[in-house]
Amino acid sequence: MDLGAVTDYLHEHIPLTAHLGAVAEYYDGETVRLSAPLEPNLNHRNTAFGGSISALAILSGWTLLHLKLREAGICNRLVIQQSSLDFLDPIADDFRAECTLPPKEAWQRFLNTLRRRGRARIKVESRIVAGAGTGGRHEGSYVAVVRKEDEAY
Amino acid sequence: MDLGAVTDYLHEHIPLTAHLGAVAEYYDGETVRLSAPLEPNLNHRNTAFGGSISALAILSGWTLLHLKLREAGICNRLVIQQSSLDFLDPIADDFRAECTLPPKEAWQRFLNTLRRRGRARIKVESRIVAGAGTGGRHEGSYVAVVRKEDEAY
Repeated sequence: MDLGAVTDYLHEHIPLTAHLGAVAEYYDGETVRLSAPLEPNLNHRNTAFGGSISALAILSGWTLLHLKLREAGICNRLVIQQSSLDFLDPIADDFRAECTLPPKEAWQRFLNTLRRRGRARIKVESRIVAGAGTGGRHEGSYVAVVRKEDEAY
Repeated sequence: MDLGAVTDYLHEHIPLTAHLGAVAEYYDGETVRLSAPLEPNLNHRNTAFGGSISALAILSGWTLLHLKLREAGICNRLVIQQSSLDFLDPIADDFRAECTLPPKEAWQRFLNTLRRRGRARIKVESRIVAGAGTGGRHEGSYVAVVRKEDEAY
């Protein structure tokens, strides 16, 4: 996986992600990790702005599912339907959003439904980490819809 | 209320809000409305990026509470604790996040607790609107902590 190409794709197609400084720094087929520097995401208290944290968390789930569906060869439209974020430790450092696939059976059920019905929903969880602390926990529900025409990556 | 000064404050202290293009366009003491143009917030499908919508929603709650606490003369630190956002219609237009205070009794209870205990939590709801549609509904829990030293606005 060329992580630089993933970062370039995000910055090109979702311009706010370039302003967040979002970088795809890890992917192993199960987990994706995006990082963001603190400085462009500061708030009035010199910690990370909640809106930046939320945006990176939402993006981490989207990126993981986007990569997995691409690997599965399913041309799709993928959008977020529900986002829920608990903010924990204040973040005073660069931070990361790490999203991991649900257990294999849930992922397989999602793929089967998507192939059979052309539409399926899945929940994924992300952890926000900064230094040694946990900045937050995010749960996102995403909906994928199969598309007929090819979509260039 | 000088709405231009509110916008300037947001852009200066939370730099991502300038990249969102967030503008304070309405405030009547009960409701605050922030707007954002579509273009800097586009996603890969040419609709508004979920992370941008979430950031504007979180900011709308923060801004409303910030202005109200300033009016009440309570010097405080105000942070978001929980964010929950249901995405509804896709947004293909400039959009707004409109946050309204909870009923008077809930607001008064929050102020009383904050004055008595030095710390209080409140939930506020925001509606995301774009054109004639509802792009989403956000609920945010914010925690205010009284500060002793003065804080310049």
